[in-house]
Amino acid sequence: MEPIGIILTPFSNLQDMPIQPGGGEGVEGTVVIDPDYVEGLQDLEGFSHIYLIYLFHRARRVELTVVPFMDSEERGVFATRSPLRPSHIGLSIVELVGVAGNILTVRNLDILNSTPLLDIKPYIAAFDHVDKSRSGWLTAKEEQIRTTRADDRFV
Amino acid sequence: MEPIGIILTPFSNLQDMPIQPGGGEGVEGTVVIDPDYVEGLQDLEGFSHIYLIYLFHRARRVELTVVPFMDSEERGVFATRSPLRPSHIGLSIVELVGVAGNILTVRNLDILNSTPLLDIKPYIAAFDHVDKSRSGWLTAKEEQIRTTRADDRFV
Repeated sequence: MEPIGIILTPFSNLQDMPIQPGGGEGVEGTVVIDPDYVEGLQDLEGFSHIYLIYLFHRARRVELTVVPFMDSEERGVFATRSPLRPSHIGLSIVELVGVAGNILTVRNLDILNSTPLLDIKPYIAAFDHVDKSRSGWLTAKEEQIRTTRADDRFV
Repeated sequence: MEPIGIILTPFSNLQDMPIQPGGGEGVEGTVVIDPDYVEGLQDLEGFSHIYLIYLFHRARRVELTVVPFMDSEERGVFATRSPLRPSHIGLSIVELVGVAGNILTVRNLDILNSTPLLDIKPYIAAFDHVDKSRSGWLTAKEEQIRTTRADDRFV
């Protein structure tokens, strides 16, 4: 599986990075797509939000249970967004500000600089909107998302 | 990148498969996780919805522009959910019915039988809910999602 581009962000270290796009509100970055794939970006600009699917390229190991940033208990890694998951795949929904050639400007970033991008998909409310959901161990903690910052536990 | 499990569904052919989870409402399947990773499933059951990230294992080629199921015009592949994307990565939000050992029961499936699973992430409203979004070329067509079925164009 080859990257299709690279994500450039203001965050060169995990420390002090927002832990989710909600905490990165207003933070802008760019996505540089391999020029070979520029034709595939046609029509993307009509979408206000996109999924970025990427590699947690700094994650060097797998931990099947982790203590998430917003918790004090060990949780199964698949019940978290920890980078130490077996596939090392990350997923973020970001706002698409604009497309110019092979360069995308995006907003609300929680992604490390120089992250290899695997795929872009449009966010489509009719497919992706979940009306009512339960968020397990996170339910009581949702308000902390905007203010919590990463540390080095997942390095 | 190694699969962490396999997705078992009633759909052995693309023909007549729902094109999105919205069209697969009520359709149940199971996800069998490699027993080595069962510890990572802890706490997952608290979430009502999960992302499945998987490989479009039947897709044999890449097409940078495609005519989506719900359209009659060519669109850039990154502005669609077509399997013929460079990475061949698929993403679906499904309902989590239950977890028993290394077996997940899931509902609302639009996935082919025997699909290799790359990752599971919890759907967390505070991270993933998008309040207002624009869906580009799809906007006028959202009502067709529930009734449209796949054909063999992406085989």
